[in-house]
Amino acid sequence: MSGPAFSDVLAAAARIAPHVHHTPVVRSHLLDEWAGAAMHLKTENLQRVGAFKMRGATNAVLQLSDEVAARGVAAHSSGNHAQALALAARVRGIPAHIVMPRDAPAVKKAAVAGYGARIIECEPTQAAREAAVADVIAETGAVEIHPYDNDHIIAGAGTAALELMREVTDLDAVVAPVGGGGLLSGTSLAVHGIDPAVRVIGAEPLAADDAARSLAAGHPLPQPSPTTIADGLRTGLSERTFAIISAHAEQIVTVTEDQIVEAMRMVWTRAKLIIEPSAAVAVAAVRSLDLRGARTGVILSGGNVDLDALPW
Amino acid sequence: MSGPAFSDVLAAAARIAPHVHHTPVVRSHLLDEWAGAAMHLKTENLQRVGAFKMRGATNAVLQLSDEVAARGVAAHSSGNHAQALALAARVRGIPAHIVMPRDAPAVKKAAVAGYGARIIECEPTQAAREAAVADVIAETGAVEIHPYDNDHIIAGAGTAALELMREVTDLDAVVAPVGGGGLLSGTSLAVHGIDPAVRVIGAEPLAADDAARSLAAGHPLPQPSPTTIADGLRTGLSERTFAIISAHAEQIVTVTEDQIVEAMRMVWTRAKLIIEPSAAVAVAAVRSLDLRGARTGVILSGGNVDLDALPW
Repeated sequence: MSGPAFSDVLAAAARIAPHVHHTPVVRSHLLDEWAGAAMHLKTENLQRVGAFKMRGATNAVLQLSDEVAARGVAAHSSGNHAQALALAARVRGIPAHIVMPRDAPAVKKAAVAGYGARIIECEPTQAAREAAVADVIAETGAVEIHPYDNDHIIAGAGTAALELMREVTDLDAVVAPVGGGGLLSGTSLAVHGIDPAVRVIGAEPLAADDAARSLAAGHPLPQPSPTTIADGLRTGLSERTFAIISAHAEQIVTVTEDQIVEAMRMVWTRAKLIIEPSAAVAVAAVRSLDLRGARTGVILSGGNVDLDALPW
Repeated sequence: MSGPAFSDVLAAAARIAPHVHHTPVVRSHLLDEWAGAAMHLKTENLQRVGAFKMRGATNAVLQLSDEVAARGVAAHSSGNHAQALALAARVRGIPAHIVMPRDAPAVKKAAVAGYGARIIECEPTQAAREAAVADVIAETGAVEIHPYDNDHIIAGAGTAALELMREVTDLDAVVAPVGGGGLLSGTSLAVHGIDPAVRVIGAEPLAADDAARSLAAGHPLPQPSPTTIADGLRTGLSERTFAIISAHAEQIVTVTEDQIVEAMRMVWTRAKLIIEPSAAVAVAAVRSLDLRGARTGVILSGGNVDLDALPW
């Protein structure tokens, strides 16, 4: 498996540019003081669908042949990938079939439906989700777009860090959260494609620390029963993302649930940006490191939260 | 009274550039659908101290002679001007004396103190505030920097719209909230200095509609007992701001408290930006107008809110 390369990130950036936001890089002196580092916040919470996922989904959907695309795309997801794939399919004018567990929040189902996707409900188990996707593929001929174990998704995800590296040309380190590893993989390719000397650091919840354990073990380990508030980071690495991350990431920093909530609130309060817990994991990791004022890029991965159920 | 001119806004932009953020212009398709206009959000909530006030305060403080500056600056304010003047003074390395009512939120006092200002507490009445400022000026020789009835403050406030007009070169209209009128005055000078054909529209709470009534009457009317949630917009126009606004603003749109809260929540939910009620007034105004997709600039004036007392 050769996997995606920096050139794929460059190509993705050109391909998706008409359909995604070039998100701003935001600074906050007060947040820097708190974190102990000069943070350059890449605001993917301001991306379409409120998450970096729009980049990969768009890159994947745009590369389908017309014949394949006409049959539609499919995925199981209760998170940001569902919305991103639904919108990317609408951008191309093709069907999207999204398998969502019955207990997914109504607001997430409404968002996916709002982008014109067909929602297939299933029992809230991994087996039921995979079976439902297999059924819809058998029925429609749709192609499955995996949320991270996919070269096009990874290359698309990397375009956020590519924009960041081009805009801030003297970074010392770039920090991104890691769940399934798509974002950190793409970030690795983009950062080291531009400057191999820049440190690439992953951030994950201690309560879902499979990436840290996997790097220590030298092979991907599963993530059984994660309990973190960072709902976007509960998945485990694939062979594909493990290979990229282990080649590029200097370390995976783990943070506690309390650190995640504290960082989330600090970003809301100081930087006036609504970020979800998964994005706060990266900010919490910066504070927990001794970066001594290093110029640090931070990928704020998304901002989809329930305003009526805030964790403080 | 000649008042500030477009050239003053241009000079202010150059003067304050090293000390303030060039804030991004943010788009949100979903927010546009809701509002019925293509909104270009000038994110002054991401400005230093979380509000556009940093621009005017910096412009005013930097224009003091060394001799005057050394004696310090003074103001009475329980809002964003207090923090902005405190930080602007710290930037110049001079004292700031901020009169705040005893019942001002502890978090606001802490923020002002955090910027190194001296806080003088007084009874929560206009008379007590003005007397306390007079006392501190008599005692220290400090110069009062009024929050809006000041040419330098107005010119500095206009630099936000200046940046917006330079970045988005084909706007049809620019909407800004109006309280004392400093922001709308500066916005008027900047917008019409660049393109006199662009519509300048003010937005204010119906519960504090002195600007709308003043424009209708042809002279500034007071704002007795405003009760709006938009705490930044409870003040009334001065002769100075009335003169500029009446010469430039096409209209003042008034919005209800329910419209303000709805718009605030929509910006949080759709655009992932934390804005305060005063900023939401401008967004609510856009929605209430029939702009039919017009390219509209909106000044999001600030983002300082109490996360533990949200209005929904």
